[in-house]
Amino acid sequence: MKLKDLGEFNLIRQIASDLPSLKEGIVGIGDDCAVIPKSGSDEAWLISTDMLVEGVHFLTSKMSPVQLGAKVLIVNLSDIAAMGGSPRFCFLSMALPSDLEVSWIEDFFKGFRNICSLYDVLLLGGDTTHSLNGITLSVTIIGDAKITDIKKRSTAMPGDLIAVTATLGDSAAGLECLLKKNPSFDYLLNQHLAPKPYLAEGRFLAKEQSVHSMMDVSDGLASDLLRITESSNCKARIDLEKIPLSRELILFSEKEKVDPIEYAVCGGEDYCLIFTFEKRQLAELIASYSEKFRKPFYVIGEVLASDPTDTTMSRLKILYAEHGRVVSGERTEKFRGYDHFAKN
Amino acid sequence: MKLKDLGEFNLIRQIASDLPSLKEGIVGIGDDCAVIPKSGSDEAWLISTDMLVEGVHFLTSKMSPVQLGAKVLIVNLSDIAAMGGSPRFCFLSMALPSDLEVSWIEDFFKGFRNICSLYDVLLLGGDTTHSLNGITLSVTIIGDAKITDIKKRSTAMPGDLIAVTATLGDSAAGLECLLKKNPSFDYLLNQHLAPKPYLAEGRFLAKEQSVHSMMDVSDGLASDLLRITESSNCKARIDLEKIPLSRELILFSEKEKVDPIEYAVCGGEDYCLIFTFEKRQLAELIASYSEKFRKPFYVIGEVLASDPTDTTMSRLKILYAEHGRVVSGERTEKFRGYDHFAKN
Repeated sequence: MKLKDLGEFNLIRQIASDLPSLKEGIVGIGDDCAVIPKSGSDEAWLISTDMLVEGVHFLTSKMSPVQLGAKVLIVNLSDIAAMGGSPRFCFLSMALPSDLEVSWIEDFFKGFRNICSLYDVLLLGGDTTHSLNGITLSVTIIGDAKITDIKKRSTAMPGDLIAVTATLGDSAAGLECLLKKNPSFDYLLNQHLAPKPYLAEGRFLAKEQSVHSMMDVSDGLASDLLRITESSNCKARIDLEKIPLSRELILFSEKEKVDPIEYAVCGGEDYCLIFTFEKRQLAELIASYSEKFRKPFYVIGEVLASDPTDTTMSRLKILYAEHGRVVSGERTEKFRGYDHFAKN
Repeated sequence: MKLKDLGEFNLIRQIASDLPSLKEGIVGIGDDCAVIPKSGSDEAWLISTDMLVEGVHFLTSKMSPVQLGAKVLIVNLSDIAAMGGSPRFCFLSMALPSDLEVSWIEDFFKGFRNICSLYDVLLLGGDTTHSLNGITLSVTIIGDAKITDIKKRSTAMPGDLIAVTATLGDSAAGLECLLKKNPSFDYLLNQHLAPKPYLAEGRFLAKEQSVHSMMDVSDGLASDLLRITESSNCKARIDLEKIPLSRELILFSEKEKVDPIEYAVCGGEDYCLIFTFEKRQLAELIASYSEKFRKPFYVIGEVLASDPTDTTMSRLKILYAEHGRVVSGERTEKFRGYDHFAKN
């Protein structure tokens, strides 16, 4: 069997299933970050690592080195935000073609250092090596958080509301504008090229006991919510009409004659937060959140109890509804998440 | 200017020079590991990361996936050994072609897990992603050590003796056997395919106050000793006749009509330790080391004071001598270390 037939979810599941069990509060594979408690403290280290490959995650022809240097760190900061932590240290490894211009690398570091100083992260090391084909980047980020604040994927509860901290689908539409050399949608382009990590929002939500689970939206709502439902052993309903869409995504969709909801559900790289929380705390939570951040979060659905007799495929763990009626057929067939090794 | 004209040393120097200064005992770029003190403890975390690229660091046609899975972790364990620490946790990121056989990945993990359980290291996370060209692997390793035990590259002292924990050049000769399909030198092949990390030796030497500096030999004696001399602001003399050579390397060199010293000085991937220590402690140190490990270490030279008026190129920071006479000219011209971005 080839990797593309197995898929990324199953590969990770297989890797994780063979590992020894962990102890002393350590959390391993399966969340945005690993968690290592600091001894003699009520805090823990949060550690995550992401690899970005030229031609897969970025095109140097479509993105300046300054933008890439910033983004490679931001996607990692987003993992710290997803657990409710604060970033502290990072490590950067790069495989670089030897005919790369030094000025490109200098600009890349300009972008990387900007984000380091903006979010108070120290670059402590890494590796530089030769590549035969294109650029590969790998960042390891280390942050920390109070242990009782840390929000996981695996603790969603049936009855929880599901919310996101920003409009969805903008980055995916921005990517399409970039690839089609469509410069009319600056906002969308910018959401793709220069996402922001929701660190302050993550820390705020982490302090709220009513928030049960949290992660960042990196592979797209469909994929990422599936990870929450699978690890929390539950199902979820998304109310499509409640998904927040930017004015720019709607204009883009009208012009391009595409379904904006498809971008919002399937598109990746939003890097906002998705979280679930106690329904009865809605009014209080949205009031305090809106007061602090001068913008709301968006409730898009509900966590459902899983049916133990249900043996359907895992992607049916998410129901899509529109104005109270379940949507099925061709439209939701498209609502699959991103698989790095997918056949198509 | 292209990266190949700048070189790896200068690239890292340039990256490091622009970073904010560190505080509270944190050590960043420039040693085998970064060091982060554990608060309220006399210990520190040691963190290192290495990237391995197919076609540059390994060939899947020449190495079984089990061997590769083991080696990618061992080269990282070697960085922990180099600082005198014990490994605790690791993270593995992989960019994989989608037509890779799943059985290959399973075997790779067999090798990786074997080393995890042999050295009591927990795999806590990583990233899996698609690659367009070949396999790229990145491991981040986290270990720890007592702060007062940690040995750095930057603390060699003039007058120190320089020693290594094993014969040099075997891995480089093994690589050549592998590439030339020469199966006659099992031992050399094995040194290349299955190096061992000198963790116990590193911890032993870390406890010795007479040991002033230490690192692992990964890019070759010439390159790695240059790092010690540069960061300790000193020079060094290597006594070529004292470099330990394996019986197998000598046989190989006779058969292939090559200079074994060139393999020992320039060849990389030995993954033994190089350290400097107080000359007057030699007898005591070698006695206690030999008693513990049932093998000696090998003194190969001496740390020299740097001459402040000397403005020669940095590679002249290492003098090569043979039976007391400095060797120069064509032979030592070859004694350059490995540069990942070198022109040739």
